[in-house]
Amino acid sequence: MSAELAKERRDVALANRMLAHEGVLDAFGHVSVRRPGRADRYLLPRSRSPELIEPSDVLEFDLDSRPVAATDVHLYSERVIHGEIYKARPDVMAVVHHHAPAVMPFCVSGTALVPVFHLGAPMGASVPFWDQRAEFGDTNMLVVKPEEGASLARALGPHAMVLMRGHGATVVGASLPDLVLRAVYAARNAEYQWQAHQLGKVTPLSAGEIEKAALVHKQPNVVTRTWEYWSMRLEKSGNGIPEETRARAGAKSKSVSRKKSAPRKSAKRRRG
Amino acid sequence: MSAELAKERRDVALANRMLAHEGVLDAFGHVSVRRPGRADRYLLPRSRSPELIEPSDVLEFDLDSRPVAATDVHLYSERVIHGEIYKARPDVMAVVHHHAPAVMPFCVSGTALVPVFHLGAPMGASVPFWDQRAEFGDTNMLVVKPEEGASLARALGPHAMVLMRGHGATVVGASLPDLVLRAVYAARNAEYQWQAHQLGKVTPLSAGEIEKAALVHKQPNVVTRTWEYWSMRLEKSGNGIPEETRARAGAKSKSVSRKKSAPRKSAKRRRG
Amino acid sequence: MSAELAKERRDVALANRMLAHEGVLDAFGHVSVRRPGRADRYLLPRSRSPELIEPSDVLEFDLDSRPVAATDVHLYSERVIHGEIYKARPDVMAVVHHHAPAVMPFCVSGTALVPVFHLGAPMGASVPFWDQRAEFGDTNMLVVKPEEGASLARALGPHAMVLMRGHGATVVGASLPDLVLRAVYAARNAEYQWQAHQLGKVTPLSAGEIEKAALVHKQPNVVTRTWEYWSMRLEKSGNGIPEETRARAGAKSKSVSRKKSAPRKSAKRRRG
Amino acid sequence: MSAELAKERRDVALANRMLAHEGVLDAFGHVSVRRPGRADRYLLPRSRSPELIEPSDVLEFDLDSRPVAATDVHLYSERVIHGEIYKARPDVMAVVHHHAPAVMPFCVSGTALVPVFHLGAPMGASVPFWDQRAEFGDTNMLVVKPEEGASLARALGPHAMVLMRGHGATVVGASLPDLVLRAVYAARNAEYQWQAHQLGKVTPLSAGEIEKAALVHKQPNVVTRTWEYWSMRLEKSGNGIPEETRARAGAKSKSVSRKKSAPRKSAKRRRG
Repeated sequence: MSAELAKERRDVALANRMLAHEGVLDAFGHVSVRRPGRADRYLLPRSRSPELIEPSDVLEFDLDSRPVAATDVHLYSERVIHGEIYKARPDVMAVVHHHAPAVMPFCVSGTALVPVFHLGAPMGASVPFWDQRAEFGDTNMLVVKPEEGASLARALGPHAMVLMRGHGATVVGASLPDLVLRAVYAARNAEYQWQAHQLGKVTPLSAGEIEKAALVHKQPNVVTRTWEYWSMRLEKSGNGIPEETRARAGAKSKSVSRKKSAPRKSAKRRRG
Repeated sequence: MSAELAKERRDVALANRMLAHEGVLDAFGHVSVRRPGRADRYLLPRSRSPELIEPSDVLEFDLDSRPVAATDVHLYSERVIHGEIYKARPDVMAVVHHHAPAVMPFCVSGTALVPVFHLGAPMGASVPFWDQRAEFGDTNMLVVKPEEGASLARALGPHAMVLMRGHGATVVGASLPDLVLRAVYAARNAEYQWQAHQLGKVTPLSAGEIEKAALVHKQPNVVTRTWEYWSMRLEKSGNGIPEETRARAGAKSKSVSRKKSAPRKSAKRRRG
Repeated sequence: MSAELAKERRDVALANRMLAHEGVLDAFGHVSVRRPGRADRYLLPRSRSPELIEPSDVLEFDLDSRPVAATDVHLYSERVIHGEIYKARPDVMAVVHHHAPAVMPFCVSGTALVPVFHLGAPMGASVPFWDQRAEFGDTNMLVVKPEEGASLARALGPHAMVLMRGHGATVVGASLPDLVLRAVYAARNAEYQWQAHQLGKVTPLSAGEIEKAALVHKQPNVVTRTWEYWSMRLEKSGNGIPEETRARAGAKSKSVSRKKSAPRKSAKRRRG
Repeated sequence: MSAELAKERRDVALANRMLAHEGVLDAFGHVSVRRPGRADRYLLPRSRSPELIEPSDVLEFDLDSRPVAATDVHLYSERVIHGEIYKARPDVMAVVHHHAPAVMPFCVSGTALVPVFHLGAPMGASVPFWDQRAEFGDTNMLVVKPEEGASLARALGPHAMVLMRGHGATVVGASLPDLVLRAVYAARNAEYQWQAHQLGKVTPLSAGEIEKAALVHKQPNVVTRTWEYWSMRLEKSGNGIPEETRARAGAKSKSVSRKKSAPRKSAKRRRG
């Protein structure tokens, strides 16, 4: 395995754990990333609860959501969500499907989710609402058939997030850090909108504000800062990915990852 | 003690702790399991708060809720809930009685609890509401007499869950993992329904969706995955059941449990 | 110091920490106990946040709320709450004054708090509402003068709990374990009542149910069980009172406390 | 670096971490302090999430928000909030800008925040509402230009706190401990007011009560107690600032900080 792939698998595992730690994912939900330089492949863990994902759980899939290497481990039944969105949206590099408690009242009531604070702007001015039943009748509500995934991708359209009636949400991003910021703050936005609704009035941002605030939260120094923050929170919680696992995640990557972590530590010391 | 019984007692202790850790049980509430191959017996802890239960706290009862072996420890006064339901419902293999904060507003207001998302489906299309006072007048609200337990079992009928006015809920399952998934997600469903209610509209799943979504959450790989997830969360929280206690829970089970855990560990290593 | 006094001081510290850990107390609030066999004295910590209280912080006061031994440490300015209630209510053996978030909406809105589930019954059928301003005009809202404490005690009357407008609540009990159970479940009751209110209907327990359910929660095995539960939660959280401090809390109590804990440990072992 | 400056940097780092730990700050937000004896300078961390701030991250700025020493680290883009308020309000010694979840519903709905309990009084009788769009049209909603900071400072006027539409809040204080108490309890006040609103009636404190209750919470023993409380909670959470970092934060401060902590420890022991 290349050092690059090892890093990608580790980042997928980290994003899964971060989003679990921040209350976006629970026993269910999953995060994937498109392989850089291989637009026809994406990385997604085997079927397992997000906060338990290890780099070695992360497998490679083609856009028809078939594992590239034969495997007998359980796979997420809903991986077409990822494959069909990567097909439909060449700009999308990362996808998360989740049932965050904060967005569920909107999935249940059909109330439109709108950006109500600057950090909600990355979620986009409009969040479409997809009702699986409208097209497929009574199902078990899981998105398992390619045509169900494709229908969801159509509903998502050019947007950043789509709500799924009685189920949850799917969010897309230009990178894992971008995706994590968007997913976390879309959940916060949902909470604040729900609470403001009780006070009797919800004032969304203006179209111009949404556009401008979304741009600022795409800047590398912003997503780097939030990625650092959520990583360190994860590590402090005791649920980070241990060094040992990192090393094992790819024999060749050992020396690389050591070199990588070394400067970080000394930087910390120099600061003192 | 047989290795099988040791495992059952450990699983009862684990289910108690998991449900406490996930916010379904608190100082009160209790989880039991029917003995496999002994339809006339069930296992339930001595009177103690759920998150403190150890395998050695778990005792055996007949369906009249009398301890099989004489004991002078305190017993839950409400164990007839378990005995009477096992009598009335041969298909039920596990029972939890709880006062989860999420369902209390429904027990207080009498509002009907309905599945509003796919993971709420295992709770069933209809959740009956039992008012102890209707049949027994003013009581201390505990279900302590056999006839009170039998009345509750009648109200439960063929359903998966029953709400108890001003008291809490009782949930049944086909196994401990099935029960835990159902109880946890019924609580989440209650939260989302309560929140959606504030937004003005609650759209339940359709009858067909409930049936199909309930089926999918009975599949072994789903309940295995959630059981793994909640077990590992429990262990990480520092409230897992220590190896030492496991070993002591039955002298004969020692070698068995070691053999059992060995493959899991090496599997983890192989993945690296 | 006698071993008995050492135990009382330790129990006061524990009750403070437990109530902080269970979300009843925060930076403010305080718990006291009347000295058994000395009806004219009570024990209350020096001015310090409840979750930090150590046995050695606990001082002795007369019913005029003067420290029995001269001291230069800061004292709670509101200790007359305790002294005046002990004067007015010979049956009261423990008092807590708190600002639990759960009861604050009731203190702010003036909505009557009523038992809505069996564990809310110990709180009493009626919770009086005291408005300091009605008798004393604009104050800094702290209960610092003897006449303010006496007024609050009059408002409490024969009840178990009194709400204080824009301030918090005061709860009394027949013992520390009784007080802790009552205070914790009064807070839970407030949450459920608040939530049920959103669903449109609040059904309180009947007068007969309240009386009967309150009785059952005074039974020694119930308060012993909840005291054990909250103590162990506290210890697991890392905020228990370390053995070392216990020992130092009174030289004479050393052997006593060792004897006391020994059987518990061996009981645990025998269970294995 | 002088021992005094080392202490100030450490206190800024502590205040950032405390407010993160108490749920006022998250990935974003920042705390500054004016340098005592240098009214034209303030201390603010480099751009980093508050709960990660170390003393060595804290830099010195002039009132035009330019770093006093050249640096190539990322700076908060919104530091003009601090500089412009220090210019306009000579009495202000500490500033925090935050997006506390508790206040967001008020920022979104425009509902006036009013003191509803005695600890909300330090927030002030009136909390102005600033809408950046009214003066600057569609922006990215960050306060980055000096004129935006100056506009916010004008809106704050002589008050203790200002709400920012769709963004968050800014709070000022006479010292870091005063600021932390005010910010924490303003957030709690927002929660209670929001909850009381659901019950149908919000009764604010009277003008006289606000004035008197605010005074009492400025007393040194009150802010010392809350600072101790939040510091110890932070330390227990494992996110305190380690001794090692303290020492390194300034070579000269080593002996000073040891002398300082020594009496505290022995005081603790003597109490035993």
